[in-house]
Amino acid sequence: MKCKPCGATAVIDIPRHRAAFCAGCFSTHCHEQVRRAISSHRMMGHSERILVAISGGKDSLALWHILVALGYQVDGVYLGLGIGDYSDTSRGYAERFAQAHGLTLHVVDIPTEHGFAIPEAARATKRVPCSACGLSKRHLLNRAALDGGYDVLATGHNLDDEAAVLFGNVLQWQVGYLARQRPVLAATDGFARRVKPLIRMGERETAAYCVINRIDYLVDECPMAAGNKHLRYKETLNEMEERSPGVKAAFYLKFLDDMLPVLDGVAEEERALVGVCSRCGAPSSATVCAFCTLVERVAPDPAR
Amino acid sequence: MKCKPCGATAVIDIPRHRAAFCAGCFSTHCHEQVRRAISSHRMMGHSERILVAISGGKDSLALWHILVALGYQVDGVYLGLGIGDYSDTSRGYAERFAQAHGLTLHVVDIPTEHGFAIPEAARATKRVPCSACGLSKRHLLNRAALDGGYDVLATGHNLDDEAAVLFGNVLQWQVGYLARQRPVLAATDGFARRVKPLIRMGERETAAYCVINRIDYLVDECPMAAGNKHLRYKETLNEMEERSPGVKAAFYLKFLDDMLPVLDGVAEEERALVGVCSRCGAPSSATVCAFCTLVERVAPDPAR
Repeated sequence: MKCKPCGATAVIDIPRHRAAFCAGCFSTHCHEQVRRAISSHRMMGHSERILVAISGGKDSLALWHILVALGYQVDGVYLGLGIGDYSDTSRGYAERFAQAHGLTLHVVDIPTEHGFAIPEAARATKRVPCSACGLSKRHLLNRAALDGGYDVLATGHNLDDEAAVLFGNVLQWQVGYLARQRPVLAATDGFARRVKPLIRMGERETAAYCVINRIDYLVDECPMAAGNKHLRYKETLNEMEERSPGVKAAFYLKFLDDMLPVLDGVAEEERALVGVCSRCGAPSSATVCAFCTLVERVAPDPAR
Repeated sequence: MKCKPCGATAVIDIPRHRAAFCAGCFSTHCHEQVRRAISSHRMMGHSERILVAISGGKDSLALWHILVALGYQVDGVYLGLGIGDYSDTSRGYAERFAQAHGLTLHVVDIPTEHGFAIPEAARATKRVPCSACGLSKRHLLNRAALDGGYDVLATGHNLDDEAAVLFGNVLQWQVGYLARQRPVLAATDGFARRVKPLIRMGERETAAYCVINRIDYLVDECPMAAGNKHLRYKETLNEMEERSPGVKAAFYLKFLDDMLPVLDGVAEEERALVGVCSRCGAPSSATVCAFCTLVERVAPDPAR
């Protein structure tokens, strides 16, 4: 197996690109995929201050590494979820990466600052843990970006993540969610711009990027996610991808190109409905936003 | 296993309805599913003359049987595709059903009337056989409906068929095809109204309906369809359905309710583009329609 760009011995092949790469050309290829995602969706510029959400896993660390290599000004933010050993370990990976590369990492610890941990929140809301976790992440990462004066919040959602979310939204025809599933969400009152620069990279590729670039990351998946629907959708898409390489990327990228423009009207209607949370001032379609409602349920403030 | 409506011993269970049925109640249930599809999509009325496309398989014969039971005036049309023994056998099933129930069956034989068979057409066009077959069926069934003065052309596409077509269109985000994937296509210049009354019945249910009602049908699938993408999509959907009963019906029926309205604008743009075939007068976006182009290629008229 030869490297397509340079002819050296390849270390990885990517069936959907019908190409194999040596270590050096693979890193260049990954940089190029991220550069292309950023430029074709006008995600951000080199003069902007970027905050990247860091979990300690392969995607977020690869993203931080690549954005720095592409010359962006990027700090990181780590969110402590209070998921026992998993959270302690993942924080270590995030901090060691920041230190090794001389980068700034902010830490927001939910148990310390908000008085609850994700497992408790999941029990209290009687919903799947990923639900309480996702809404807490969206809220607190956005707040960290705004409070730190960053122009952009970048997350490590990769092609597999986005395709699986899209698959779930399509199976149920969640039209409102479909209309909002964009690689760039423009800044609006109370929301920093949010971007997903890894949408052209699969998770096998972010893992390989880390290995090749000696980035030490937490390999374990979150113990609370086991068996969730998102992982089942990923399996189904992987089975299809194995039979027809490229089907997953086509499904997601053609959605962006061909379907999202049709959904522009729906997205605007949804935006028009947003007001402000009476507790924290964050954008919300209800009087009290989902995060404040969660906090009230799980760790009520005795003073109120 | 007890019949949900009457408590007798059940002969079939339908996980997505969380119900099992005895033979009698199952037939009533099927009639009700078809009645509901017809009424909620305003497919047709009892004073209209309906032509149903009959292949000799379970879906089309079940549909004919149910439409007659629901009091519609329905004749059948059988299209001879020239696929060797398969076509001869399927025609026999169609004719025997019509005779046994005192119904009128028109026969259009492509080899006799148009000078080619589907296998030749597939070879000549170098595309998958289902492509030449599908376009011939659409063209000739529509012509049969118009020439016979029928108001409506009904086809036996069931829930599994429609869900698989939708799945394929979604994987590639074929927005134009999505906008046209409707259970009713209104009559326009050169097109009879087309309806799909079986969209609420899975293929396991049409088969069971035939067995219970002693309708003899051709069990074999078309030999030319083996291994096509449509069958692969059905398998994928069946695997998902097994894990989460109801996911397939939700995928298709929620598409009709929630997504199609968003696509109304796209469908109108597409309709505006249609002209007329210079050879046969059928609606066509090209100067010569796809069917006349096919005929010209496979069985050119020496006089022209």
